[in-house]
Amino acid sequence: MSKSPEEIHPTKAFGWAARDSSGVLCPFKFSRRHEIVGVVTEVGCKVRRFKVGDKVGVGCMVGACHSCENCNNDLENYCPKLIYTYNATYHDGTRIYGGYSDVMVANERYIVLMPENLPLDAAAPLLCAGITVYSPMKYYGLCESNLHLGVVGLGGLGHVAVKFAKAFEMKVTVISTSPSKEKEAIEQLGADSFLVSCNPGRMQVATGTMDGIIDTVSAVHPLLPLICLLKSNGKLIMVGAPDKPLELPTFPLLSGRKLIAGSWIGGMKETQEMIDFAATHNITADIEVVPMDYVNTAMERLARADVKYRFVIDVAKTLTIT
Amino acid sequence: MSKSPEEIHPTKAFGWAARDSSGVLCPFKFSRRHEIVGVVTEVGCKVRRFKVGDKVGVGCMVGACHSCENCNNDLENYCPKLIYTYNATYHDGTRIYGGYSDVMVANERYIVLMPENLPLDAAAPLLCAGITVYSPMKYYGLCESNLHLGVVGLGGLGHVAVKFAKAFEMKVTVISTSPSKEKEAIEQLGADSFLVSCNPGRMQVATGTMDGIIDTVSAVHPLLPLICLLKSNGKLIMVGAPDKPLELPTFPLLSGRKLIAGSWIGGMKETQEMIDFAATHNITADIEVVPMDYVNTAMERLARADVKYRFVIDVAKTLTIT
Repeated sequence: MSKSPEEIHPTKAFGWAARDSSGVLCPFKFSRRHEIVGVVTEVGCKVRRFKVGDKVGVGCMVGACHSCENCNNDLENYCPKLIYTYNATYHDGTRIYGGYSDVMVANERYIVLMPENLPLDAAAPLLCAGITVYSPMKYYGLCESNLHLGVVGLGGLGHVAVKFAKAFEMKVTVISTSPSKEKEAIEQLGADSFLVSCNPGRMQVATGTMDGIIDTVSAVHPLLPLICLLKSNGKLIMVGAPDKPLELPTFPLLSGRKLIAGSWIGGMKETQEMIDFAATHNITADIEVVPMDYVNTAMERLARADVKYRFVIDVAKTLTIT
Repeated sequence: MSKSPEEIHPTKAFGWAARDSSGVLCPFKFSRRHEIVGVVTEVGCKVRRFKVGDKVGVGCMVGACHSCENCNNDLENYCPKLIYTYNATYHDGTRIYGGYSDVMVANERYIVLMPENLPLDAAAPLLCAGITVYSPMKYYGLCESNLHLGVVGLGGLGHVAVKFAKAFEMKVTVISTSPSKEKEAIEQLGADSFLVSCNPGRMQVATGTMDGIIDTVSAVHPLLPLICLLKSNGKLIMVGAPDKPLELPTFPLLSGRKLIAGSWIGGMKETQEMIDFAATHNITADIEVVPMDYVNTAMERLARADVKYRFVIDVAKTLTIT
């Protein structure tokens, strides 16, 4: 007879979860093997990289096959058998419950050591937003001080992209549909300039000036104006995922040897490198810390982009068994 | 008073040209400074790379600004002031007449030395089709013996791409809408395999197997099936230029860190490198040599893709002043 999930994973956990398709989250007791940012309370006998008391984090993923070409190249994020941290099924068939919970268990490969000087709350979103923009900047060489980077969309991903690009000492231009974000982009985040994408005159002046663009927009949007901003050999990197195909004009790609690429979070080794780089350069996400029972309101506000720029739930202080 | 084109360029030339919008070509006498493949008959006093009697070629371009970043990096093909060999205007305002003619004058920067062992006629198309596929293969690293390359479309560009890829000792799969081309792709050109792009079963089996794809198709066509053929980090290079935008699905790019890029002929230094490589590996284009007065029939046959794979006009033997 096969063992029940409770027998396989005896760690009892309490958290918040959506129990039906309404999406409304409520308190929930469950049996779990998993957790997001916190402190190590226990290590397995084979664990070498961490000890009890370490400040650690878990990002978007908790497992992969560990035998494919991508896993062997520290690119678990591109493994066909990648297991996400939320709403997924583990190798043994048990459910993955995410991190809205008091305890979490994870394979050490998926644990990031959080440097002492980084505040846990403001560093937590870097484990997703940070690595999502950092990884393509490194892979595509968009991290050199003599380069000009465009960042499309000033939200959770975009504001972190500006911070990393400035840490790389790049020239940074934020491109947004919202003129109201100019002051914030330049004064708060340190961008060098700001372009309103629906202003053809300003866009025209910036034609052929950028070495690369990180496009964080997940709504359908035109690519041609962005391609035109690139110099020859320029690179437009998509990290948002519009749910419908975009229109791709091919001639502007050909005539400037330009490329459009996608990138998806990053491998665990690179995630640790990103966090260490963030610690060195004091990069954190701009966050609003909320209590556990605010989660449904936070979800509603997220849906209307009413947050600068990431909610972080203080689970430890506000999760109470009711 | 400004000089007439005849005074600036006293070389008298005879050729064939379309004199009106019908596109029909007929014999034509003109004053010219320009010509395609042939033998050097005269060199200017500052010319160092060539001597009378050399076998030489001129490709798609005859001029550029020679001061921009692209020109300085031997990428005249991406210079904003690039001057094409046909139907263009030179720096001095005179017309560029192309190569359907008995003589041609060109700046030595735009002249390629044709190696002795390459037949001029079958090597001539390499100056466009050859460099168009060779350049992106080199730039994107799709020229290593352990890689698998897809070639979409088996025409003038595609058949040359297969030959270069086999010279690089790559595994090559031709992808075509025409099942009738399988025998030719494999038996004549040496491709390792053949995929009919409209056969979902065969395409499915090949999912995730290719490191790169050279897409030579200039008609509107779906990109998703091609993106799916790529491994993680795979590269889809467009060298055809469909006149309408293509549908770009972004999620498949993100989830495999794939890229779509364009490439446009190549610089002159690389064109010489390509011709030398072709000579070493005995690569030529498959051609049908026709006389000058066949040009209009050839144009008609080109329009219905009735040629394997390039027409070459024997101007020297068949151009007669009527």
